[in-house]
Amino acid sequence: MKVALLQMRVGQTPAENLETARQMLQQAAAGGAELVMLPEMFCCPYETPNFPKFAEPEGGARYQRLSALAREHSIYLIAGSMPEADGSRTYNTAYVFAPDGSCIAKHRKMHLFDIDITGGQRFMESETLTAGNTVTVFDTPWGKMGLCICYDIRFPELARLMALAGAKVICIPAAFNMTTGPVHWELSFRARALDNQVYLLGCAPARDLTASYHSWGHSIVTDPWGTVTAQLAEAEGILFAELDLEKVETIRKELPLLRHRRTDVYELREVRK
Amino acid sequence: MKVALLQMRVGQTPAENLETARQMLQQAAAGGAELVMLPEMFCCPYETPNFPKFAEPEGGARYQRLSALAREHSIYLIAGSMPEADGSRTYNTAYVFAPDGSCIAKHRKMHLFDIDITGGQRFMESETLTAGNTVTVFDTPWGKMGLCICYDIRFPELARLMALAGAKVICIPAAFNMTTGPVHWELSFRARALDNQVYLLGCAPARDLTASYHSWGHSIVTDPWGTVTAQLAEAEGILFAELDLEKVETIRKELPLLRHRRTDVYELREVRK
Repeated sequence: MKVALLQMRVGQTPAENLETARQMLQQAAAGGAELVMLPEMFCCPYETPNFPKFAEPEGGARYQRLSALAREHSIYLIAGSMPEADGSRTYNTAYVFAPDGSCIAKHRKMHLFDIDITGGQRFMESETLTAGNTVTVFDTPWGKMGLCICYDIRFPELARLMALAGAKVICIPAAFNMTTGPVHWELSFRARALDNQVYLLGCAPARDLTASYHSWGHSIVTDPWGTVTAQLAEAEGILFAELDLEKVETIRKELPLLRHRRTDVYELREVRK
Repeated sequence: MKVALLQMRVGQTPAENLETARQMLQQAAAGGAELVMLPEMFCCPYETPNFPKFAEPEGGARYQRLSALAREHSIYLIAGSMPEADGSRTYNTAYVFAPDGSCIAKHRKMHLFDIDITGGQRFMESETLTAGNTVTVFDTPWGKMGLCICYDIRFPELARLMALAGAKVICIPAAFNMTTGPVHWELSFRARALDNQVYLLGCAPARDLTASYHSWGHSIVTDPWGTVTAQLAEAEGILFAELDLEKVETIRKELPLLRHRRTDVYELREVRK
């Protein structure tokens, strides 16, 4: 199974960003990718006022354009994330389009990134965004996959619930910054992959020092043994990687972490709403 | 707060190992350590037949000796782990002794290490050990601390439950091997520390290539930002480290991971037996 993560440089307008995504997606498909992922908020600069400003409802023009691209290239498209308008609310939402263009999954970022570090990063997503409430898993011909967005990766509960729901790959459009990226990006991807014995795919925007939010970049693939199998630096580019899903089964057989969980001592469950 | 992790070389008999522990503990106390930790199964070679062979009941001679050492040096002693006999059962047990010699906590390894890797490690603790059932947290003048043993660290649920129970430091006598050590030891300590914004202390036996089980060593301290603040290599030695528990509060304030958990979407709880 061949995947491609599009570490694109995000410009000022959705129109130019969709065009960049289209061109890179074409290259990825030409390179043999069967699943392609876009970064978090690939369609507008990562600033809280932009989220309501550029939000479209599900099924809007951008959604249709991305669905058409998936169909045109006959690929699975993890359409990064975009601001989604739902009534007066705005969500940070990732759609998944199948090769026939149908939308087979949708994840609304569940943990909003509110951080205020002395001498470092300050960012408050909750100023303009509403959080989602759903653990997201979807079917593909290669097996089940999970989907979450950026800060969601920080919470071991969510990755575990996706793995317990059958995910063998977890797809994560993301945009770590220059404070958390150097210290926590690779660590978080390696740890979630190892603990749950799944592949993790993380796709970030390229770094743009003219933007107000400086993305760490470093789009990444980690395998079920917790090893980084592919990673970009900070510049624009496409990260191609081959996933061997049999590795998930082999490693789970050799070191049966999921089976060794002491479910008689602790219980982790999704609270049905 | 100054801690010392005793990365001792484990010999063939409990008597010689207790003597090594006593000597190193004396050095640690002379160096100003207020809390001292011994490695997993510091009293006998790490082989499954040894566990029932060398097991003593709680309160036995070795327990008394360790209690006396804590009192003599007026330190907190995380007494590594030793095989504990309880009727016909054997547990992998860590006791914590206060400076007055009283035993203030006890953890029985909850996840038994059963691994069988093609071309790598095979080890089946469950052949001779019974697993514990308790999440272990205890009070100290510096704040609450958690306690678990080696393979227990692999399970994010347990570290999370200790943090939610108030632990600001998690103490882990451990003995990773030459298959899992190089790839997973540091990663696991960094990840649990970061996710729960706590200090982690990992104390391993020194490597002994004449033993049947080759310990990775690398006794380690990781801080609430997921950074390795101190680490040994594989040889016998004492790892001294200063912990700044205010860092726990500062980091939890700046990046409130524990508060950002979506407890309305997922629930992690200890199943009361």
